[in-house]
Amino acid sequence: MHIGLIGLGKMGFNMRERLRRAGIEVTGYDRNPEVSDAASVDELVAALPAPRIVWVMVPSGAVTDAVVADLAEKLDEGDLVIDGGNSRFTEDQRHAEQLAQKGIRFVDCGVSGGVWGLENGYGLMAGGDAADVERALPVFDALRPEGERADSFVHVGGTGAGHYAKMVHNGIEYGLMQSYAEGYQLLAAKDIITDLPGTFRAWQKGTVVRSWLLDLLVKALEEDPGLDNIDDYVEDSGEGRWTVEEAIANAVPAPAITAALFARFESREDSSPAMKMVSALRHQFGGHATRPAK
Amino acid sequence: MHIGLIGLGKMGFNMRERLRRAGIEVTGYDRNPEVSDAASVDELVAALPAPRIVWVMVPSGAVTDAVVADLAEKLDEGDLVIDGGNSRFTEDQRHAEQLAQKGIRFVDCGVSGGVWGLENGYGLMAGGDAADVERALPVFDALRPEGERADSFVHVGGTGAGHYAKMVHNGIEYGLMQSYAEGYQLLAAKDIITDLPGTFRAWQKGTVVRSWLLDLLVKALEEDPGLDNIDDYVEDSGEGRWTVEEAIANAVPAPAITAALFARFESREDSSPAMKMVSALRHQFGGHATRPAK
Amino acid sequence: MHIGLIGLGKMGFNMRERLRRAGIEVTGYDRNPEVSDAASVDELVAALPAPRIVWVMVPSGAVTDAVVADLAEKLDEGDLVIDGGNSRFTEDQRHAEQLAQKGIRFVDCGVSGGVWGLENGYGLMAGGDAADVERALPVFDALRPEGERADSFVHVGGTGAGHYAKMVHNGIEYGLMQSYAEGYQLLAAKDIITDLPGTFRAWQKGTVVRSWLLDLLVKALEEDPGLDNIDDYVEDSGEGRWTVEEAIANAVPAPAITAALFARFESREDSSPAMKMVSALRHQFGGHATRPAK
Amino acid sequence: MHIGLIGLGKMGFNMRERLRRAGIEVTGYDRNPEVSDAASVDELVAALPAPRIVWVMVPSGAVTDAVVADLAEKLDEGDLVIDGGNSRFTEDQRHAEQLAQKGIRFVDCGVSGGVWGLENGYGLMAGGDAADVERALPVFDALRPEGERADSFVHVGGTGAGHYAKMVHNGIEYGLMQSYAEGYQLLAAKDIITDLPGTFRAWQKGTVVRSWLLDLLVKALEEDPGLDNIDDYVEDSGEGRWTVEEAIANAVPAPAITAALFARFESREDSSPAMKMVSALRHQFGGHATRPAK
Repeated sequence: MHIGLIGLGKMGFNMRERLRRAGIEVTGYDRNPEVSDAASVDELVAALPAPRIVWVMVPSGAVTDAVVADLAEKLDEGDLVIDGGNSRFTEDQRHAEQLAQKGIRFVDCGVSGGVWGLENGYGLMAGGDAADVERALPVFDALRPEGERADSFVHVGGTGAGHYAKMVHNGIEYGLMQSYAEGYQLLAAKDIITDLPGTFRAWQKGTVVRSWLLDLLVKALEEDPGLDNIDDYVEDSGEGRWTVEEAIANAVPAPAITAALFARFESREDSSPAMKMVSALRHQFGGHATRPAK
Repeated sequence: MHIGLIGLGKMGFNMRERLRRAGIEVTGYDRNPEVSDAASVDELVAALPAPRIVWVMVPSGAVTDAVVADLAEKLDEGDLVIDGGNSRFTEDQRHAEQLAQKGIRFVDCGVSGGVWGLENGYGLMAGGDAADVERALPVFDALRPEGERADSFVHVGGTGAGHYAKMVHNGIEYGLMQSYAEGYQLLAAKDIITDLPGTFRAWQKGTVVRSWLLDLLVKALEEDPGLDNIDDYVEDSGEGRWTVEEAIANAVPAPAITAALFARFESREDSSPAMKMVSALRHQFGGHATRPAK
Repeated sequence: MHIGLIGLGKMGFNMRERLRRAGIEVTGYDRNPEVSDAASVDELVAALPAPRIVWVMVPSGAVTDAVVADLAEKLDEGDLVIDGGNSRFTEDQRHAEQLAQKGIRFVDCGVSGGVWGLENGYGLMAGGDAADVERALPVFDALRPEGERADSFVHVGGTGAGHYAKMVHNGIEYGLMQSYAEGYQLLAAKDIITDLPGTFRAWQKGTVVRSWLLDLLVKALEEDPGLDNIDDYVEDSGEGRWTVEEAIANAVPAPAITAALFARFESREDSSPAMKMVSALRHQFGGHATRPAK
Repeated sequence: MHIGLIGLGKMGFNMRERLRRAGIEVTGYDRNPEVSDAASVDELVAALPAPRIVWVMVPSGAVTDAVVADLAEKLDEGDLVIDGGNSRFTEDQRHAEQLAQKGIRFVDCGVSGGVWGLENGYGLMAGGDAADVERALPVFDALRPEGERADSFVHVGGTGAGHYAKMVHNGIEYGLMQSYAEGYQLLAAKDIITDLPGTFRAWQKGTVVRSWLLDLLVKALEEDPGLDNIDDYVEDSGEGRWTVEEAIANAVPAPAITAALFARFESREDSSPAMKMVSALRHQFGGHATRPAK
């Protein structure tokens, strides 16, 4: 099998390598010529046997929109585009329709595994028509970890379902990380705990909270036991917000995931207008001293 | 009527004044001789007609414990001690029993109104035996706003009930302030809002959210429209914590009040260990850049 | 002044009455002929002196869309449409542009006060051009409570700003109600509280938590001291969701308001899938008994 | 090595078996004679070689108190008591002092692993003096999974530190379960997801959210794909509450863990007084219909 892969950043670069190791021929394209196989998307398209499979692995939003629009022009009927990026599920239907006008097929695929995917394989969640998903199975099989397919790959449902599942996956991920982080802070605050990194390490086998994230947490503490070199500023990349928006749209209470999202917002504030107001109110009614702004 | 008042700080000082304006004779004692009427608690006790009423208005915890212990020695059978401070309701039973050993009566009384109480009167919540509460009614009537007694005074229940009600009152207060503060931050973040102070001002009459706290918020914005001179560091003084602890003890979900409490904790952190950990985890699995600690 | 008013439901009906009491002539239209003054929107338009003012007070979303589209056809250049309903602020720009194509002016106006507005007056938040807001001032003055205009009316900003402010107002309202409700449940759970309605009543004057909502809470407990006749099922009508969505869009932490929204979602669940899963997990790892589904 | 084990319930029964498989001789005692080796604690004490090691694995609180008090009478100087139950860390110091009066040593040990511990081994967190912990290492090594000791055992700190770490472990567990459960509910609510159990199954390998709890979740869905036989009623057993109480005591924000705890409280309510109040308030100000109580 020979496929195209557009986007060779942190994720795409490793995926190309994993695909090749599994015997899939890959022509990659990236704006960065140092990592790119093809000089242009045209060249990439020309290099592929028809009907083509092109995996798109670029930032969601405007960049994915542009790449899909470009492929809608350059590909032919019967070709298949797989969006493996973190697109919002609401965009998949639009992309599918755009491509369908020329008879080009579309599958959305959530990909999880981060920088470890090259070594471990990626967890995959696909949305789209069964025939299209079937056709790309060799690609999915090459990317996912070895073992039973169903433990690392799922055809979740129709168009958008793959990205929906990935969105929820990331929402859960927010909640898991927040939970460990709250426990970390609590242990760190208590002086009777004299071996904090050792405590997390000892949870890796046997306990109820063992997980891959816990293994990474242990690794992080091995590298920097007090996290002294890391700022408490945490970005969010969209999926957490979309998960809460979907919770709202579907009237599903999601307090833990939302708490994780809000904690990130707070982490990025130099100063909280809300807390200034609470301080101002306490001063107004109780004469409590306010601190002058720094 | 002639009563004793121990503790002439921000609250007690104003209460003495309000009591005197209402015709109650007050002998006040404070460690600060500049505001004290009596040179000592002994002198205060000697000055009062028996059976005595002594109102205690000192910081909760150790100071209140010490004053109650002192009064347990110096007062006589039939005298009445009223704890109007912010004692935890769990301490009232202990104080009542300590005093009861000499036949001294005890009433706990939650007092709300802050620095505005002198002018507006205080909201009062009393706990204890009906006869003891009845006996102190002239004091309560002098302290509370004019108008129907039931609109500003309540005999909530037995010993501890007054402070319990005050604790919940303050827990609610945390939630109310947090709610306004979140709305404030949201309006402040939106550039289509060109008259932020005016918006809050216009809510004072007619709207569903009108309240005394809103009036104070308007006042705060009049004094400092951008809250530029106020730091976002917010103390908490116990009742919020106790409210959440009681919510836990009684299996009552209290997410809004708890959110308000946690927001204060966050406001006081120079750096969040939990958010450092989330940042570290994102780096571990996704290769997301961490910011070096400042 | 003579204006048109479309929508004579719970809010519009009372507003027509309040406007008339203030000397504003009102031609009202409603699909319900029993309350309508005009037989049709055409008749309403015909009855008004040009340049016309038409206040729209119908359900947000499709109904408001339809009414605005209808008015865009039937009104003339220079006429003014005021949307006083609970439209999402994002729709205002669209409505304004739709009307502007014929030179019809548009103002969005958040209206708060509920069924008490007839008697107390309404709090008003207007968005739009200054000249248009100015022109409608007699209408705003008639609707708002007596006293200083700035205490109950504000020109918040450009198109959409009025509804934005109203949205945040309602978000705050969610948080305030949730805070009182949590305190209510906590007091109700504690047996040392022997006068629960009396406690809330006594908070009405003098305390920090006094508010109009508290007055209504006292009224509710007077009518039904144990709330025995009221189910714990709470609707939400949009603004709370929009507020949290805006919090997310602007990276503003809003945990108390969000807690209030999620509590409503929970109140409407017959059974919680999430809690079934937690129960299933506890059973899996700990052998904890699950309850069979009812 | 030959030790005593008091308490042969769900946990203790399996632990005895695992210890024996590892070659540790165990004399077990339980009130249930069918599982007990010794007829009484006296008999158990008599059976053990001095200096003795007695592992206590009974319900925390009164039962543990009683067993420790009994052992304080029956054991001798130099004997060692290990409390492996879920005692609150605050009780450890008391137990240690009680036993120390006769020169009996004490170690607290958090044990995680649930019903799977027999097969997988248990994660262990010990608190106490180094010499005492050292002495019990063969027991810990028998109970924990094979592999490096530090991956499943830690000497956390002094007396109480083991139970403190276990408490935080369980608090984290609450947050993890809640996070998965929220994601589950969200996926279950969305009709584009046509293979819900398959989605979770596919997360088991390769994804960022893979964990032992996820494996159990997959198992639960295999047994009952819609969780149709499980009620949404979730108990809590103490550690979650203590974790939040410690968060409050140490001013550590713990919104996700607290959300998980409150969700359990809500799951057990037949009817929510707080939501009745919100419904009542909406009715009061907006004339919104309330549902009559069921």
